[in-house]
Amino acid sequence: MTAPLEAVAAAPIRASRADLGPPPPLAQQALRVIPLGGLGAIGRNMTVFEYDGRLLIVDCGVLFPDTEQPGVDLILPDFAPILDRLDDVEAIVLTHGHEDHIGAVPYLLAHKPDIPLVGSQFTLALVEAKLAERRLEPYTLTVTAGQRERMGPFECEFFAVNHSIPDALAVAIRTEAGLVLHTGDFKMDQLPLDGRITDLAGFARLGSEGVDLLLSDSTNAEFPGFVTSEREIGPVLDAIFAKAQGRIIVASFASHVHRVQQVLDSAQEHGRKVALVGRSMVRNMGIARDLGLLRIPGDLVISMDTATELPANEVVLMSTGSQGEPMSALGRMATGDHRHITIEAGDTVVLASSLVPGNETAVYRVINGLARSGATVIHKDVAKVHVSGHAPAGELLYLLNVVRPRNLLPVHGEWRHLRAHAQLGVESGLDPRRIILAEDGDVVDLHQGEAALVGHVKSRYVYVDGLAVGDVGESLLTERRILGDGGFISATVVVDSVTGKVVGGPTVSGKGFSEDPAISDAVLPLITEALNRAAEDGVTDPHQLQQIVRRTVGRWVNETYRRRPMIIPIVVEV
Amino acid sequence: MTAPLEAVAAAPIRASRADLGPPPPLAQQALRVIPLGGLGAIGRNMTVFEYDGRLLIVDCGVLFPDTEQPGVDLILPDFAPILDRLDDVEAIVLTHGHEDHIGAVPYLLAHKPDIPLVGSQFTLALVEAKLAERRLEPYTLTVTAGQRERMGPFECEFFAVNHSIPDALAVAIRTEAGLVLHTGDFKMDQLPLDGRITDLAGFARLGSEGVDLLLSDSTNAEFPGFVTSEREIGPVLDAIFAKAQGRIIVASFASHVHRVQQVLDSAQEHGRKVALVGRSMVRNMGIARDLGLLRIPGDLVISMDTATELPANEVVLMSTGSQGEPMSALGRMATGDHRHITIEAGDTVVLASSLVPGNETAVYRVINGLARSGATVIHKDVAKVHVSGHAPAGELLYLLNVVRPRNLLPVHGEWRHLRAHAQLGVESGLDPRRIILAEDGDVVDLHQGEAALVGHVKSRYVYVDGLAVGDVGESLLTERRILGDGGFISATVVVDSVTGKVVGGPTVSGKGFSEDPAISDAVLPLITEALNRAAEDGVTDPHQLQQIVRRTVGRWVNETYRRRPMIIPIVVEV
Repeated sequence: MTAPLEAVAAAPIRASRADLGPPPPLAQQALRVIPLGGLGAIGRNMTVFEYDGRLLIVDCGVLFPDTEQPGVDLILPDFAPILDRLDDVEAIVLTHGHEDHIGAVPYLLAHKPDIPLVGSQFTLALVEAKLAERRLEPYTLTVTAGQRERMGPFECEFFAVNHSIPDALAVAIRTEAGLVLHTGDFKMDQLPLDGRITDLAGFARLGSEGVDLLLSDSTNAEFPGFVTSEREIGPVLDAIFAKAQGRIIVASFASHVHRVQQVLDSAQEHGRKVALVGRSMVRNMGIARDLGLLRIPGDLVISMDTATELPANEVVLMSTGSQGEPMSALGRMATGDHRHITIEAGDTVVLASSLVPGNETAVYRVINGLARSGATVIHKDVAKVHVSGHAPAGELLYLLNVVRPRNLLPVHGEWRHLRAHAQLGVESGLDPRRIILAEDGDVVDLHQGEAALVGHVKSRYVYVDGLAVGDVGESLLTERRILGDGGFISATVVVDSVTGKVVGGPTVSGKGFSEDPAISDAVLPLITEALNRAAEDGVTDPHQLQQIVRRTVGRWVNETYRRRPMIIPIVVEV
Repeated sequence: MTAPLEAVAAAPIRASRADLGPPPPLAQQALRVIPLGGLGAIGRNMTVFEYDGRLLIVDCGVLFPDTEQPGVDLILPDFAPILDRLDDVEAIVLTHGHEDHIGAVPYLLAHKPDIPLVGSQFTLALVEAKLAERRLEPYTLTVTAGQRERMGPFECEFFAVNHSIPDALAVAIRTEAGLVLHTGDFKMDQLPLDGRITDLAGFARLGSEGVDLLLSDSTNAEFPGFVTSEREIGPVLDAIFAKAQGRIIVASFASHVHRVQQVLDSAQEHGRKVALVGRSMVRNMGIARDLGLLRIPGDLVISMDTATELPANEVVLMSTGSQGEPMSALGRMATGDHRHITIEAGDTVVLASSLVPGNETAVYRVINGLARSGATVIHKDVAKVHVSGHAPAGELLYLLNVVRPRNLLPVHGEWRHLRAHAQLGVESGLDPRRIILAEDGDVVDLHQGEAALVGHVKSRYVYVDGLAVGDVGESLLTERRILGDGGFISATVVVDSVTGKVVGGPTVSGKGFSEDPAISDAVLPLITEALNRAAEDGVTDPHQLQQIVRRTVGRWVNETYRRRPMIIPIVVEV
């Protein structure tokens, strides 16, 4: 270790964060960087750049909820800090087409539909398909690697990067404040299927010019070494295909064109036809084929109907559901609920995908369901059927050494990833004081060649639940967690609105608390007794009566069960 | 592949399981095997053997709940199939002291406290400590590797096995029906820290004698190859200790004596003192030291109070909480809630433990909390600070080839593990028809050298929640999941008990549904309108009124929010 990481780590330590107030006015010739998502969690990537009163947004993605956000469908970046400045936005640059980079675009365009979207052909095709479902037709500017585009004060230059989706881009942003490179998500597979490598030479040229600030993907910063080439999956699939006697079902991400390509190639090699299963798989592979990114030889791909008529050993199903989603095609197969496909002894199922942390229980449930139905299930823990799309430490060091940035802002990661990336920066010789460990809402100004944390704007998790956005907040999620862990007991009492006398009830009901039928009998006398005592004391205020009921039930539950259901006293006046 | 696994897999496929009724009466000279836990999930291991009207139980453990069992503390085996036969139980043989093998003993002894417990010294010490907390003093028989004990018709012989806890045993059970070998949990580290290797030579002797049925640990059957030796953790710890500038905190399982030993050794090597943190860590290491299983040189181990007075670079804290448990010592450190320990920049935290599937979200939350406070966190994904305690495929094949059992019953695993183990059986040359893929409650009879699935007994998950056992069932957990995902809306109406007329309410309240304050205003008029219409139609039955309220609220919620809260109509009669 060449320098202590403590110099870096000092800034963002919890205790000192409270000191970060709102940012000061932006200095002349300074560039402001506000990450509204992607720093502190993997997902909802969104970075706002501000120069001379104008804004440029890079990515606008969603975060998928975990067990701490029960019932939530999606988590959006908090647009509040820019909502009253949408007229200042020059464009939204989309680095690639993954949901965690494009998924929140419809929600931002709902506020202002004419913000231009800038990205590669495939990226824009995916986001346009998504917007079409909401009858939104965006303004778009298609760019390719090597292209330069000026957007207001921002001169953008695009670079090819290799990732687990085709057509991904990094973006260099030049303003009078300096040169910024944002890698987007990337890895450095040196032999990618499409020959489109991460443009390290281009980054070197930027490095020679002088990169003032590097924002770089931290997802795999904890892992030493280098990724295995995507093309090494092919032979593994081939071996599985050679051995399989019955039907083969492969599940992967619906945007992983190169993985699907290798499945198609293996299928053809082994004389099998392929049916695409799952709405997003069908849609995305159609787009990829139309753009020449997916090669489908002749009549290789068939409909599901045709597939069901072929012998099992002539069929491959290419499916969604690799993350254990219960309603996906694979999820339904695992529970025996798929309309067309019944898993049988002799089937081989391949999960050719990552296992996103938090999805383990769901994925293993699917695997067990398939295994129980007689399928042989092959997943990344037991065979090399997946490689990551993100650069691990070895590759991040290559980038750092080629770019030699003046300042480093690790992005796209939880704290553990950001911190590991900062450590790599230190080890590569960067001045620890020029490495910014920041989290969502932190404001970083690049001024006279130095980047510094200057303030913080509020950056809540904004929850989408069903049709509504924003009416679910942290205290509501706490209620859900309490209800989900312990259920509730409600006790209803009817009182005379004039005298305050109890004229009906108490009745007790509960859900999710206990199946013991004797509960009502046990607690009702206690409530009645407490209410009688209250009446003797002349208590008639409904709120006080509620409190008495709550305390009585609460004490009984705790003593009898040591559980913490929510207790809901309802006092109705008549 | 030498033979198709389909021959094995056919029996347990879901569709055919319904055919399994209650088992027939046990034949003369037949041994019955009833796994009441551990087949279909990793945990609550418990196998009942029956011969000539007498029962022998091997292990009696708990399963830890996952997200599908919200609010549950523990899951027990279902004792129902043996509850009226506890007088027939000769003994409970405990293979080792992990919770998933001993944790349910107190719950079984609650039914009959004088069932003898048989196990090694360390195993019994751990279970006795657990029972002492409930003021239970069990009858015990301490056995050592090599020992033979007759218990009724069961002649038991014990064998040393190597596992992630000291003093683990396999047990061979001889009856007139034949010779059964139950491995318990094991791996085959050939250079274990204590020199106590799995007794492959003993198993070979049994193999020569002829093993009729092998029950063997399937936990790692999916993984190819062999485990790394536990002693290879030592040098990794040493390197971490050498590099650490500040305090070192190591978290691991509170029963992993050898892991703790290596931490103690590294600490001594680097001139640091060790404080044990966490109630179970202190208790178990005390037991291990007393039994000579843990070497603590001189004054190496100090109290927490002393530790806080030493300079950071002279301290190691050996802690519980490696699975992200929020209330554990490490969990509290991660959130800044520990009474004595505040994580600081410069601290090094090592999670020297596995990551039990399902705990990922919790563990990464802890890691991020520690990283955010400035600690460098090292875990098994990024350094070799953990090896598994279970034999992977390579070692399982050694066992199969040495024992050459007539019949194989893979135990201790989810379906994916059991199936992978069955596959290994096939590949090692076993007749696929002699491999039994069974799940909890399946009844397997060994008769005239052949094991076969003969029936099924009910084997529910029995839930412990707080003080009560068994009043939480599947439908209650469904209620919790619904409440946890969507909260509830309750609507209360007071009606006259004679006329059925509405005399109070409706009032609406909700928890976990929406923070929108306008909800009551939106839905109340709809309920009132529906009730008025009901009154016009002469509806007075409270149950019908409840249904009307439920439908009205339900329709409104679905149309407005596309959410599925629980809807609780309460009609009180006065």
